[in-house]
Amino acid sequence: MHDEPRIGDVFGEMLRDAYAVETGVGPRPLAGGRLPRPVIEIIERDDGMINGVPAQQYFIGPEHWQPYDHRAVDRARGEVLDIGVGAGRIALELQDRGTPVTGLDVSLGALRVSRARGVRRLVHGTVDEHAAGEHRYDTFLLLGNNLGLIEGRHRAADFLAALAALARPGAQIIAQGTDPYRTTDPVHTGYHERNRRRGRLGGQLRLRLRYRELATDWFDYLFCPAEELVGLIEGSAWEMVDVDTADAPYYLATLRLVG
Amino acid sequence: MHDEPRIGDVFGEMLRDAYAVETGVGPRPLAGGRLPRPVIEIIERDDGMINGVPAQQYFIGPEHWQPYDHRAVDRARGEVLDIGVGAGRIALELQDRGTPVTGLDVSLGALRVSRARGVRRLVHGTVDEHAAGEHRYDTFLLLGNNLGLIEGRHRAADFLAALAALARPGAQIIAQGTDPYRTTDPVHTGYHERNRRRGRLGGQLRLRLRYRELATDWFDYLFCPAEELVGLIEGSAWEMVDVDTADAPYYLATLRLVG
Repeated sequence: MHDEPRIGDVFGEMLRDAYAVETGVGPRPLAGGRLPRPVIEIIERDDGMINGVPAQQYFIGPEHWQPYDHRAVDRARGEVLDIGVGAGRIALELQDRGTPVTGLDVSLGALRVSRARGVRRLVHGTVDEHAAGEHRYDTFLLLGNNLGLIEGRHRAADFLAALAALARPGAQIIAQGTDPYRTTDPVHTGYHERNRRRGRLGGQLRLRLRYRELATDWFDYLFCPAEELVGLIEGSAWEMVDVDTADAPYYLATLRLVG
Repeated sequence: MHDEPRIGDVFGEMLRDAYAVETGVGPRPLAGGRLPRPVIEIIERDDGMINGVPAQQYFIGPEHWQPYDHRAVDRARGEVLDIGVGAGRIALELQDRGTPVTGLDVSLGALRVSRARGVRRLVHGTVDEHAAGEHRYDTFLLLGNNLGLIEGRHRAADFLAALAALARPGAQIIAQGTDPYRTTDPVHTGYHERNRRRGRLGGQLRLRLRYRELATDWFDYLFCPAEELVGLIEGSAWEMVDVDTADAPYYLATLRLVG
């Protein structure tokens, strides 16, 4: 018999520890009380699949970015909302370029790390919560696979409506996604089938994050090809104007506010 | 609702992938089908605590070892049994020194990787299974925290009896342990208390390993201070002759066959 982990700010705790390792600021995590312990985010899928991701990826500078991240940032214009700001790697680059940017995150710990690293404008909450306020934007960035926040058929309409409510006329969404169907790995293709049998999109991952004693609740996070995304935005205030597949299976979708 | 992972050779699959990354031999694990995915062993504790450990640690050469590993290998003499040979880092060094060594592991995948890396004498199984055969040894190595294989009060006597059955006269055990009680981290001190309330040793970890879609069964793995170890070997065929605590909380215990 084993216990379920405690629900908490997994992402924030993990980034705080990773920031301590990066900078020497704050207590660094140790193994056995003495040797440095690598900071690893753990991502669990509801079929029992699990993966570890070294936290350094949230801190890498532009010189180590994937090419699509550069092209995404190059497309940003006007007032930018960086959705899921994390440790601020994208927001910091935009600030350096003189582009006005606000970082949004549901993780208080992530916001603390972004603040410590120099991100100036930060907001705590979901896009829905933020839309209740007065701020309006020209560009929404969903990088680091954060197109996934669209979750699936059920959530997509509300998510896109919240972004429309936050949008200035002519606003754009730059979303980085991954086509999950270009694999023959049975661990993944079997999962896609299982999802479809349950009336879900194939790449509608059901995940939770874990770090040490903490876990998030289970949540949906969508990996979908651009063609599937077209279906999801139908009937919303957004239209797809470009898909950059130069780094397939990773891609950048650009959506523009209609009218 | 989420599913339990499938039971399998977690350690072997993980080492196979890590070996592919190290050498370029065999398919390397990829994220999203294209970018290299770091190979990380996941260790889950029965209170919901979880940690990721980069697999590279099983491949590091002597130049990157902790000092106690060097001192352990320096103590090896005669016919050596490396218990939990893993990817063979200790056995390979002993072979280089001309010390006759056999690597034992319950993981077939680990044995395959050790074989591919050049370990010449390998045995599949537990110490109990191996004791049923004819091989006898002068030194038993339990490195990489593998003193933990003693599990706890219940298993200790049988484990030590199996090693005694495998032993030549005057044989020694060199076991690397970690004192778990030198922490004030409530995540750990609380776990120790919980264990004691259940009649277990404080550092008697209940763990399972996970890698991608696979998990091991839950098993006990003991972290104990040397003083606790003294109690566990009482009444066995072994006596403690030295404890090297130069790298506390990590230590090397040397046990010698009595008589």
